[in-house]
Formats: sequence, C-alpha cells, structure tokens
Amino acid sequence: MLNEELNALLAEDESSAPESRLVRALSERGTVSASELSRLTGLARSTISMALAELRRAGVVIETAPGETARGVGRPALAYALNPQAGTCLGVHLSLKDIRLMVADVSHSVISEKTIPLGLDYTPEAAVNAARRALRETYAEKGLSLRTLIGAGISFSGPVAPDGRIQRASIVPTWAGVNIRDVFEPALQLPIFADNESNCSALAEMTWGAAIGEEDFVFYTVDVGVGGAIVARGRVLTGVAGGAGEFGHMTIDPEGDLCRCGNRGCLELTASFSPALAVASRSLGRTVEIEEFVQLALGGHSGFARLIEDTGLKAGRGLGMVGAALNPGLVLVGGRGAVAGEMLLAPLRRAYERHTLVKSADVPEGQRTRILLSRFAANNALMGAVALVLRRQGRLG
Amino acid sequence: MLNEELNALLAEDESSAPESRLVRALSERGTVSASELSRLTGLARSTISMALAELRRAGVVIETAPGETARGVGRPALAYALNPQAGTCLGVHLSLKDIRLMVADVSHSVISEKTIPLGLDYTPEAAVNAARRALRETYAEKGLSLRTLIGAGISFSGPVAPDGRIQRASIVPTWAGVNIRDVFEPALQLPIFADNESNCSALAEMTWGAAIGEEDFVFYTVDVGVGGAIVARGRVLTGVAGGAGEFGHMTIDPEGDLCRCGNRGCLELTASFSPALAVASRSLGRTVEIEEFVQLALGGHSGFARLIEDTGLKAGRGLGMVGAALNPGLVLVGGRGAVAGEMLLAPLRRAYERHTLVKSADVPEGQRTRILLSRFAANNALMGAVALVLRRQGRLG
Repeated sequence: MLNEELNALLAEDESSAPESRLVRALSERGTVSASELSRLTGLARSTISMALAELRRAGVVIETAPGETARGVGRPALAYALNPQAGTCLGVHLSLKDIRLMVADVSHSVISEKTIPLGLDYTPEAAVNAARRALRETYAEKGLSLRTLIGAGISFSGPVAPDGRIQRASIVPTWAGVNIRDVFEPALQLPIFADNESNCSALAEMTWGAAIGEEDFVFYTVDVGVGGAIVARGRVLTGVAGGAGEFGHMTIDPEGDLCRCGNRGCLELTASFSPALAVASRSLGRTVEIEEFVQLALGGHSGFARLIEDTGLKAGRGLGMVGAALNPGLVLVGGRGAVAGEMLLAPLRRAYERHTLVKSADVPEGQRTRILLSRFAANNALMGAVALVLRRQGRLG
Repeated sequence: MLNEELNALLAEDESSAPESRLVRALSERGTVSASELSRLTGLARSTISMALAELRRAGVVIETAPGETARGVGRPALAYALNPQAGTCLGVHLSLKDIRLMVADVSHSVISEKTIPLGLDYTPEAAVNAARRALRETYAEKGLSLRTLIGAGISFSGPVAPDGRIQRASIVPTWAGVNIRDVFEPALQLPIFADNESNCSALAEMTWGAAIGEEDFVFYTVDVGVGGAIVARGRVLTGVAGGAGEFGHMTIDPEGDLCRCGNRGCLELTASFSPALAVASRSLGRTVEIEEFVQLALGGHSGFARLIEDTGLKAGRGLGMVGAALNPGLVLVGGRGAVAGEMLLAPLRRAYERHTLVKSADVPEGQRTRILLSRFAANNALMGAVALVLRRQGRLG
C-alpha cells in the first residue's frame, strides 16, 4: 500500500534516512524544487537525486510544475510533491456552535470543506460522532478510500496541553478537562494531532499563506480577544503546558477589570475589538458583531474608523511588549479584526514603534520588524488543523 | 594539523556528514556517551561507531570518563569528548570598566581567566589591544600555540545585531554603532562570534550550569536592570536585530518615568534592584551597591529583606507576562540579585503564579513552570562568550 509506505517514512521522526527527510520536507512544504530540497534537508544534490528516483519508483513522490512555494527560483526548475494518492489528512476545528471539517491530500490540495452546526455547549461525543459521519459521507462522495487517511488534526479555541488535555475552556465549557486524544483516537482510529486555534492559524500561514518559507515569526490575533503564536526555527512553540502565544493575557493593569481567564487587567480587555464593539453597540442602540462593525468602518463610518484606530493603538502597545521579548523579523496580524487592513495596521505599527525597544528608525532595513496582514482571516484555524498533520506538529501520544 | 581538521568539521554548518554532526554535538556538550550522541544527532549507533573510530584515529576525538553531561545514564558507559589539544577558544566580556578574558579548550576545560581594568568609557582600540596582548601572554605562559585557537566569542552589555553592530550602548557610550567584527577580526585573525550578556549567560548555563540538556528555557536576569534570554530548540533566540530577551523593556506604564532606553515606564524601572538600592541608600545615608545590599539582607537586615521581597514581587509580575507569551517549562533566574536565593525567588514565584495565565495549581507536575536559580551569578557572561564559539552561535560574517 502506497499509504503505508508514506506513513512509515513520515513516522520515523528521528530517522535521518534521506528518504524520510525528503518526504517530511515535501509534506511540510507541498511543491518544492530540487535546489530548495537541498537547502531544506541539508542533503547533497546527488543523495537527493538518488532518493527521489527511489521515491518516484515507489509512487510516493511525483514530478510536478513548480508551485507557489518554489517562487524565487530563477528559471522554472523541476519540482516535486508527494503523490496526492499516497495520503489524505483530516482537519477539524472545534468552534463555538459548530465543528468544521476539511480534507486535503498530501500534495497540499484541499478536497472538501464542511460546517456542521451543533449548537452552543455541544459535547465531545456529539462532535466526534458528527465528525465520523461527515468523514464517511465525504469520502464516499469523492470516491476516496478512508484507508488513505494518515491522520486527523484538531484545532481548539483554547490552550491544549502537549498530552491533549484541554486546560481551560471558557468558550466551550463542556470540553474543560477533556483529553482530545481520548475523544478522537478511538472513534477515528487515526494518529491525532492537536493545538489551539492561533497556533493552527500560524501553521496555515506557513503552509498556504503569508509565511511560506518563514522560519521565525509572530502571529498576532486581534479579534474579540487577543492571542497569537510564536514560530521559532520552523516550529510553533507550544510551551510546557500548551500556553505559549497567549499574548492577550499579559497583565497590563494588576488592579484592572476581571478577565475571563480569572486574572485582572489582561491586555485583551483593552487591546481587542471588544471595547470598540461595546462603544459601537451603544452608539447604534443594538448589538453589533465584529464583521459588521469592520464593514461599516470600511464603508465610511468615521466614528467606527476612529474606534478601529484606537484598537490598533492599544494592540500595537501590547505587541510592543512582545517585541521587547522576541524582537521578531515578521509579525502577521490575523483574526476577524484584521479584515480592517491598514485602518487597523497603520495605528498598530505606530504604537509598536513607540513602545518597543528596537525602533525601526534606528536599524537598517533588514533588521526591522515587518508588520503585515495574514493571508487568511477566516478558516485559517481549520486549514491549520490539516497542516498539523502535514507538518507532524502537535502529535498526541 | 589537528586544529585545521577540527575547524573544517565544525565549519561545515550545513553538512550532514556523520563526522561533522558528531563533532558539533561534542563541541556543544563536552563529554557525551555514545547513546546520548545517538539521541543528539539522530544517527544510527552503527554509523556513530564507524565515524567515532575514524575521528579517534584522526586524533580529533578522545575516549574519556563520563562527565557531568552524561548523567542519567544507568551504568557508567563509554564517553567521548573532543581532544583538548585539537582546539582552544577565547571568550571576551566587555564590561563597564574592564574587559575579562577566558580561554578554554574544546573539551570544555577552562585554561585561564584574566581581568584587565581599562577605566570607564574605554575605546574599542584599547579593548582590542589589551585583549591581543593578554592573549599572547597567556598562551606563552601556558605553553600553548596561538594556532590552536578556533574562534573568539565576544559578550557585550547591550543588544548586538546579527551583523555585529552594537545597537545601543547606554552603558559604554564609546561603543555605540561600533561593529564588533570590524574591531576584533583584523586584530585577532580569528572567526568572531558575539552576542549580548544575557544571551551569553544562558549559553553558559547550557554548557556548564543549570541548563545542561535543556532545549527550551527562559533566562531571567534581575540585577540593576532586568534582562534575559529565550532558548528554543537548543538555540538562543537573537531576534531580527539582536533585541530578543529584553524583558526589562516591556512597557508597564506608558506614562511612567523615563527609562535609559528612551521609552517610558519600562519593567526594569520597578522590577530591578534599582528602586530597592535607592531606598536602602537613603536609609543608610550612603550609596550601597547591589552585592553589599544582598549580603546585608542575607545577614539579617530585616528592612533590606523586605526590599528584596518587594523586588521579587515586581520581578515575578514581569515574568508572568513572559509566561503568558512563552509558557516556559524552566526559568533560570540570574544576575547579581539572584545571590539572594530563596529570599528573592519565593516572592517571585508567588507573583508569577498570581499574574501568569497557566497556573501551577491547574496543571499536572510535568506541565508546571519551574523557577530556579541559575548556577553562575558571576562570570557567566564571560563563560558564555567561550560557549558562543563551542556552540557556533552568533557567528559574525
């Protein structure tokens, strides 16, 4: 079985056999040129040629047109990808009232996407049963064998411990203390990978978005809360208990308002879109959600534009603290608020420059922190759930 | 020449030849058992045996008694180290009024140490001339050939850009804008490695101290300022402009006092020992320095003990923000204030638990953040300067 061969090569995490290293690089990056493979794996060109020939004979790797990930190469070079028939991955995002599923093959092509409404406070059993049913339907529809599945990646809106336990679940209380592996592994009979939403979003940007080829960057989520992810040397840092990248819970005012996390005066109380939404709702006399609010501002509502500017200034100050700790070369701003684009980013960059240690004005171009929009505002956590499997990150057990 | 052979193996940073990988692992770790080498390099035991045999024949590697770094191995196993005669490293720490030099061999043994007073605001020329003279004297005294030198590591009290430029130098203004490589490379005719003080201190802990074998941790300096370092996947993060780990410059109060960095209300204004030293000096009616202050507190001065407790509470709150961003498994507290031991650490841990997101009380033992003392309070930056060369970190050019 092609699929078993691929699985064996991917699973040998500690193996330095050239075949394993090439397959892992292709799984992470999608379509890659031979010269890029040499840079990524540190293998000699001759070793790569031999191993690729072997992998192509076995049907695990195919030759293909250079894709987006091979950009920057002078002339169109030969490029390689994993054979899409060698394996498929399931991604599941556990959201507030629904679960979302995405299936992609190991060449990085998305095959299907589905949202299943379950209602507030759905249980782990409901989620896993719905996922299993939808998975069977999708594979039947597409004429795919379930045996091609090499793993399932789960994205959750809150910290996930390295062992799969959900630490706190203020959004979906029915999941508090639940172990994701215990829920999904018996039902799906697949290797399970899991991480929190923001970490998954960073992986989606590395795999399909604005961070392809970036080994070190910060993902900064500005939504009704503030969150993020730290990528160092090509891996998302999870922290010892799955709590890394929780920028929104840095204490700004130890005597401030209570946060949903139980601490006081957390950054997200002032730097997320929540205060702006409260002001906007008072001004409209009805509740306004973040998507509509941003659209009204973009459409010319000058008061709402001002509220977005104020949010950017607060978010930028918070990011300035992250900058003092990490001095990142690249920050990608995501979350639903990022749809506001420059209306949010311009004040955010201004406040970052004002409050961080290394000022752009003081250093040469190449040493500045670039603050850019992420590519995906919606569905990025779902795509990242698929990327967990492709990048072998967050493996449980 | 043994030395040239070692240099070639160390320099091939991108090479995946087993010999290079083994030599780099030994250079980083000192004395290592065969099983540990397998884990560190990902190479098969048989490959390791063959490559070690070759390296021993060439005289680059020696068999030795298992050292401290091989701890945890059940029975005394064979251990290996680089041949001390294969190479030596120079470390230089550029301090306020003096420069300090350390020479060690590639088996991690310290050969000599020297302090050369130069007076406040010494120039780069004075430093490099003094270093060159001291180096010649030391090697003559010890009967060593200068040709055994494989590199010089420079530690500086401020951010060092990846290209070697000193970004800001509020402590030693004569060095602002100076490029460390341009100063030291022509004079020493050696590969030059450089990083800031706290990053070097973290490397010293990884090489000889409390972080041997730790791949991910935070170093937190509490001195007259606050600083630190972030180690991820075995490397110190430098940041795009050399500014990573500058925890002391996270903005606590944007309308607070001016900091020496030019921003307002930085963490170190309240969380370092400086405010305590000001209060202590007022109470004594004379200026008291940090070393004496800590000794008086340890000796039973209850007021000074209280000041240390207050410093620990502020420093712990700051570390709590670092915790929200990084959720580290280990924090090593260093700096001259760390000599106070538990008097500082107990309140610091309390404040960390209070202000960070992931609480120890909420997670199992293995997912808690351990906050411990670093092993070296003095000379750690100097030892780290040597470690820059051994670990090939911070190479300029």
